Amino acid sequence: MTTDNALTPEQILCAAEDVLRRFGPAKATVVDIARALGVSHGSVYRHFPSKAALREAVTQRWLDRSHDELAAIAEDGGPADERLHRWLATLFAAKRQKALDDPEMFATYMTLVGELSTTVDAHVATLVGQIRRIVEDGVAQGVFRTPDAGSAARAVFQATAHFHDPAHAHEWSHERAGADFEALWSLLLNGLRGR
Amino acid sequence: MTTDNALTPEQILCAAEDVLRRFGPAKATVVDIARALGVSHGSVYRHFPSKAALREAVTQRWLDRSHDELAAIAEDGGPADERLHRWLATLFAAKRQKALDDPEMFATYMTLVGELSTTVDAHVATLVGQIRRIVEDGVAQGVFRTPDAGSAARAVFQATAHFHDPAHAHEWSHERAGADFEALWSLLLNGLRGR
Repeated sequence: MTTDNALTPEQILCAAEDVLRRFGPAKATVVDIARALGVSHGSVYRHFPSKAALREAVTQRWLDRSHDELAAIAEDGGPADERLHRWLATLFAAKRQKALDDPEMFATYMTLVGELSTTVDAHVATLVGQIRRIVEDGVAQGVFRTPDAGSAARAVFQATAHFHDPAHAHEWSHERAGADFEALWSLLLNGLRGR
Repeated sequence: MTTDNALTPEQILCAAEDVLRRFGPAKATVVDIARALGVSHGSVYRHFPSKAALREAVTQRWLDRSHDELAAIAEDGGPADERLHRWLATLFAAKRQKALDDPEMFATYMTLVGELSTTVDAHVATLVGQIRRIVEDGVAQGVFRTPDAGSAARAVFQATAHFHDPAHAHEWSHERAGADFEALWSLLLNGLRGR
C-alpha cells in the first residue's frame, strides 16, 4: 500500500511496467496500475493526465534506459574509431539482451513503440546525434574523412539497423551475428576513413 | 472454365495469387482457388501436394519475380562500382514499388514470408551471391579492395536492409529516402574501395 501523498511518477512507471508485463499492452488499464499501487486511479491521473500519456512515459523510459551508457561513450573524447565501434557494439548488446532475455516484455514494448512514432523519432534523433558527435571528433582527429558528418552519422545508423532495429530481433540469436557485426563494422570503418 | 488436363502450375499460381489478394492469407483455401479455375480441388492437388506447398510456390514466385533483372546486372561485366550501385538501386525501387503500389498484397506476402524461413533464406543467399559476384569483379578490376568478397557481400546486403527488408517498408515513402540511400551508398563505396 502506497499513500497517495508519497506517490512518485517513478513508482507509477515501475508499477505500469509490471502490469504491462503481466496483462499485456491490450489489456493493461490504469485501474490495474492503481490497484497494484494500492491507490485510487485518480492518484495516477494526477501525475499522468491520460492512459496514452502514461504509456508514452513508460515507453520513453524504456528507450532511454540504455542512453546513459551510450551518451558517455559519445562524450568521452578518446580515439573516434574505437569509440564508434564501442558505441555500436554497446547498442547491439543492449538491444540483443533485452530481446533474448525477456522476449515477452520486448514484444510488449514493440507494440507500444509502434503506436508512438514521435517518441521513436526523437529517440532516433538522439542516437544519430551521438554518432555525429563521434564522427565530428574523428574528422578533427584526422581519423575520419567525410564531407558531411550529419549525413554520415545517419548513414551509419541506417547501415547498422540489422543490429539495433527491433524489426531484426529474430536475427540476433543467429550464430553468425557477432561475425556479421564485425564484417559490417570493417566496411563502415573503411568508408569513414575515406580514400 | 479450365479443363483439368490443360491445367498448368502457372495457371494455379496466378489464381492462387488472385484468391490471396481477395480473401487474405488467413481465409484463402485450395477450394477457393479450384473454384476460381473451375476445376476440382483434386486437380490443384495433382500439381501441389498440399496447401503449404502451394503457398510456398506462390511466395517463391513473388520473391523471384525481380531476380531476373538483378541477375542480369550481376552478370553484365561492366565497372563493378556502377553495377553495384545499379543493383542496389534496382532492388530498392522494386521493393518500394511493390510496397507502395499494392500495400494489401505486400502485407499478404509479408504474412506468407513470415511462415517460410527456408524459402526466404534461399532467396537471401541468391541475392548475396549476386552481390558477391559484383564484388569479385570489382576486386579483379582493381576498383574494390577487400580480403573476403563473401563476407563483404553479406555486409553490403545487411547494411542496406533499411532499403530492401520489408520490415522497413513504412520508411520507404519518407521524403529523405532517396538522399539517405545515396549517403549510405557513398559510405559503402568508400568502404569497398579500401584504404
